[in-house]
Amino acid sequence: MLKIAQIQFNPKLGDCDFNLEKITTFLKMASNSDLIVLPELANSGYKFDNIDHAKSIANTKSCINYYRFLANFSKDNNVSIVSGYLEKDGDDLYNSSLYVSPNGIFGKYRKIHLFMDEKNIFKPGNLGLPLFSIKNYKFGILICFDYLFPEIWRIMGLKGADFIVHPSNLITQNAYKVVPAQAIMNGYYVITSNRIGTEGDITFCGNSFVSDTRGNIISEMEGNTEGVKFTTINPLLSRNKMITTGNHIFDDRLPDNYEELLDYKA
Amino acid sequence: MLKIAQIQFNPKLGDCDFNLEKITTFLKMASNSDLIVLPELANSGYKFDNIDHAKSIANTKSCINYYRFLANFSKDNNVSIVSGYLEKDGDDLYNSSLYVSPNGIFGKYRKIHLFMDEKNIFKPGNLGLPLFSIKNYKFGILICFDYLFPEIWRIMGLKGADFIVHPSNLITQNAYKVVPAQAIMNGYYVITSNRIGTEGDITFCGNSFVSDTRGNIISEMEGNTEGVKFTTINPLLSRNKMITTGNHIFDDRLPDNYEELLDYKA
Repeated sequence: MLKIAQIQFNPKLGDCDFNLEKITTFLKMASNSDLIVLPELANSGYKFDNIDHAKSIANTKSCINYYRFLANFSKDNNVSIVSGYLEKDGDDLYNSSLYVSPNGIFGKYRKIHLFMDEKNIFKPGNLGLPLFSIKNYKFGILICFDYLFPEIWRIMGLKGADFIVHPSNLITQNAYKVVPAQAIMNGYYVITSNRIGTEGDITFCGNSFVSDTRGNIISEMEGNTEGVKFTTINPLLSRNKMITTGNHIFDDRLPDNYEELLDYKA
Repeated sequence: MLKIAQIQFNPKLGDCDFNLEKITTFLKMASNSDLIVLPELANSGYKFDNIDHAKSIANTKSCINYYRFLANFSKDNNVSIVSGYLEKDGDDLYNSSLYVSPNGIFGKYRKIHLFMDEKNIFKPGNLGLPLFSIKNYKFGILICFDYLFPEIWRIMGLKGADFIVHPSNLITQNAYKVVPAQAIMNGYYVITSNRIGTEGDITFCGNSFVSDTRGNIISEMEGNTEGVKFTTINPLLSRNKMITTGNHIFDDRLPDNYEELLDYKA
């Protein structure tokens, strides 16, 4: 079993010091768990004016030190953490998520599918679709708009993910229709941690949720409140891929029929 | 615009004469439409005892003549029809769907992903994932349990399907979670025609429905009644793949990240 703590909050655009203070408060509230999951871009806020604006935020000391900040909290409190964050690598920015754990295991995923104006700010993720480990379980990370691309959910399932962690800055209800379907089709849990608040013309819709391996929403936060929600999941249930007594959702695939998937050119 | 007529009914296992009579009644009720959609295995019923039982049904005259029966009705009434049916080809059985239209266009899809005991009766479909045309629109056919495999929905979207016709014998509510997600991810309509009734220990759940291109259920039949339901769809909406002003659901795919999809071996 794995005790998950989801943090839903309202980061302040560009004010990393403020955000890290707020995150600290919530991390303390959430620390009695195995894995804490924060939203996308938790340290920076979302709606940058342009790439220079985003870079100026990425260059602040507290933004640069976000990894160290999380790793220290993880070690000091014996809890693992996944958090979306603003990442600067050389001259490039990525919309990334970090994984830190008290035993020093470290992981990173860079968002592949960029939403709207993110295309003017970030490079698409170039680290592939790694899995990470916690206890005896494996998980993958996808970020927000990635939810719309069944290919990557499927790959993570086929590679053996027991659950997907999904830091988000969602603004529509589409994910509530699509994410549980990904859970059913791949037989794993999904933990979607969303933010709240408004930046410019964008309002984030909260409702952080956990989908079980059969697409049932087993935990859901409110639409417009900050807080921490605990949910215990049993990732061993994800190892059972028999959706009926006669159907294994992966072994029943017939990939000879799927080759056209890679034919389409944009 | 396309006027769809869904037929939801209770076929009688093994009694093709009875079924064709019943289907005739419903086809007449449905004929003032562009496309009539019947459930899976509409002419034969579902729960065969074994392959010999299924073959004995497939060999009856009314079962063999189902194509001719549908083609004649189509021509006489100037309406296109998709129907699931029991298909015998040489010594093999397929869980198939026919498409007939008044101008003589004919199409066939053989169910690829077989459910439970179907594996003891049918061969997996070997005709790939064809698209068919009606007016100026293109559509694909998937059958019932195929709904769980995102690969084939995606391929039909990438090939230009404006809608998917989905003859079914559904027994759980999972499809109601998964099918609208396929519609959103691929930006097309889905028409799911389900049967009702009980055969042995299986009860079929009705609730035939239509999902629009954004995953909204725009039409739904009751759980346990026979009948015809008309729904007008605008397949031109499926040509707009911009899910935001900055995101094209197909062109935003980054297939370099998807190659692992074909790696998994059962």
